[in-house]
Amino acid sequence: MSIDVLQEQIRKMKNPVMVGLDPYLPILPQHILRDAFEEHGQTLRGAAEAYYRFCTELLDRLCGIVPAVKIQSACFEALGADGITQMQKISRYAKEKGYYVLIDSMRGDVGNVAEIYAQAMFGTISVGETAHKLYDCDALTVNAYLGSDGVKPFLPYCKHDGKNVFVLLKTSNKSSREVQDLLSGDRVIYTAMADLTMRWSTDLFGKYGYSELGAVVGATYPQTMRLLREKYDRLFFLVPGYGAQGGTAKNVQFAFDRFGHGAIIAASRSIICAWQKSDSDGTDYLDYAEAAALKMKADIGKNVVIL
Amino acid sequence: MSIDVLQEQIRKMKNPVMVGLDPYLPILPQHILRDAFEEHGQTLRGAAEAYYRFCTELLDRLCGIVPAVKIQSACFEALGADGITQMQKISRYAKEKGYYVLIDSMRGDVGNVAEIYAQAMFGTISVGETAHKLYDCDALTVNAYLGSDGVKPFLPYCKHDGKNVFVLLKTSNKSSREVQDLLSGDRVIYTAMADLTMRWSTDLFGKYGYSELGAVVGATYPQTMRLLREKYDRLFFLVPGYGAQGGTAKNVQFAFDRFGHGAIIAASRSIICAWQKSDSDGTDYLDYAEAAALKMKADIGKNVVIL
Repeated sequence: MSIDVLQEQIRKMKNPVMVGLDPYLPILPQHILRDAFEEHGQTLRGAAEAYYRFCTELLDRLCGIVPAVKIQSACFEALGADGITQMQKISRYAKEKGYYVLIDSMRGDVGNVAEIYAQAMFGTISVGETAHKLYDCDALTVNAYLGSDGVKPFLPYCKHDGKNVFVLLKTSNKSSREVQDLLSGDRVIYTAMADLTMRWSTDLFGKYGYSELGAVVGATYPQTMRLLREKYDRLFFLVPGYGAQGGTAKNVQFAFDRFGHGAIIAASRSIICAWQKSDSDGTDYLDYAEAAALKMKADIGKNVVIL
Repeated sequence: MSIDVLQEQIRKMKNPVMVGLDPYLPILPQHILRDAFEEHGQTLRGAAEAYYRFCTELLDRLCGIVPAVKIQSACFEALGADGITQMQKISRYAKEKGYYVLIDSMRGDVGNVAEIYAQAMFGTISVGETAHKLYDCDALTVNAYLGSDGVKPFLPYCKHDGKNVFVLLKTSNKSSREVQDLLSGDRVIYTAMADLTMRWSTDLFGKYGYSELGAVVGATYPQTMRLLREKYDRLFFLVPGYGAQGGTAKNVQFAFDRFGHGAIIAASRSIICAWQKSDSDGTDYLDYAEAAALKMKADIGKNVVIL
């Protein structure tokens, strides 16, 4: 896909929401754990199979409602090889269902290492004369503290293959100010990062005016978001921090341009763990997830009209 | 281990060198690839098995010469689950051989995600009532652009289990200046990061005076390194960029304190690919690696005496 296709999917579904899949065992319904442990024991394989079922059932249920999905890489890495096997399967499953798939790994490698990582995530890995497709996701998050060297290896994929990279500007967590808000001349670090992202964006602008390189801007800092939206009107925003972290529909309205374009709002726990806020035993967790996703869509829709 | 044990291993071997294992197919000797492909075909499994043989043979050969090893996570992630399987095995193999093992993943997650990642890397992952040990490494690199939230989940392991985290301050790549060298008041960003690292270090100082939280400072910026060494005399430096990237033995002398303590110099390609700079067919790659490691030790020893 590309940032244009993402925007079109959002328009089609009238829903600028990206559901976050960051499974860990305490948020999984008991019946899923029980079945997985019965088949595979209390093993990493068992846990990973439970993640797969949980995530793919959510993908089935939210298909057609939510255009995009964010897979939290570290959650799967934490289960070792079994976790990675399932992450690859979930990524492919989501693609086949038509989702825009972002893998949230916040990497910041450089040189050869970043090149190999980009190949694995966006392209193919060649072993001898055989090319292997591994993750084939649409987008990644990248931590650009190392500067251009950490981003350039991804740019050919953005230019030629419709892949996207979202650079961390201002993250949703409380301590993000410690580094990101430091003042440097007439800029703060997150605007310096935005300026770099614009510089890397040469030739990467799509038909809606947005760059294939996006920006991560947290829902928890609405004034910052508003300023960034005004100043960087060609950077598509990926907005984490909605729901469980405190970001509201009112906050995130500032992420959008006057056409209701240019942003997607990510939410994970408030959707995939919605059942835990009820007295449900978890067997109907999909109903709660769907209701939460529809409510989020409606809440955002009160302030944002997508043209 | 802990930063004290690392320092003691360095003293014992009189060698402040960490060998970097960042395999990718073009640097592997032909005979290793041939054998692996014969057994497993041109598959990701085949590539991963080749990585395992390459890395463990190097670990065997360099054992007793080099005290520490750095495993480049992204190289293994790029082979998917097969790569991760072998990375776990290589990490355990290195530990059993007595190496101090750092996994270089430069992560920058926060909250639950960082906690789960810390558990997987430093502790155990519980599945039902069963605890699984996965990577069990001694140290990680962390990108702290997200501030305290990205580092605090690791601190209990530093305090109670002798684990170490190396925070990226000033990296060895060319574009590191774009963000890291921005001026903020009377500091640059990398010193702001160093100040944060010192703040997170409360109660984490070992008997040599160094914190369990270290700092990544590139060999390619000797003047910066000298200033950082003077100002932050309680941060242990992990120094990448030696050899292939241009850092020299003369440069890295500034990383050490007057006892020759407080730093470890990482080198990867200049050791593990040393055979490629000769007319060798690669069958004797271990001889070249050993010679390069011994030469690096001798070169550093010209300027640094470890007391």
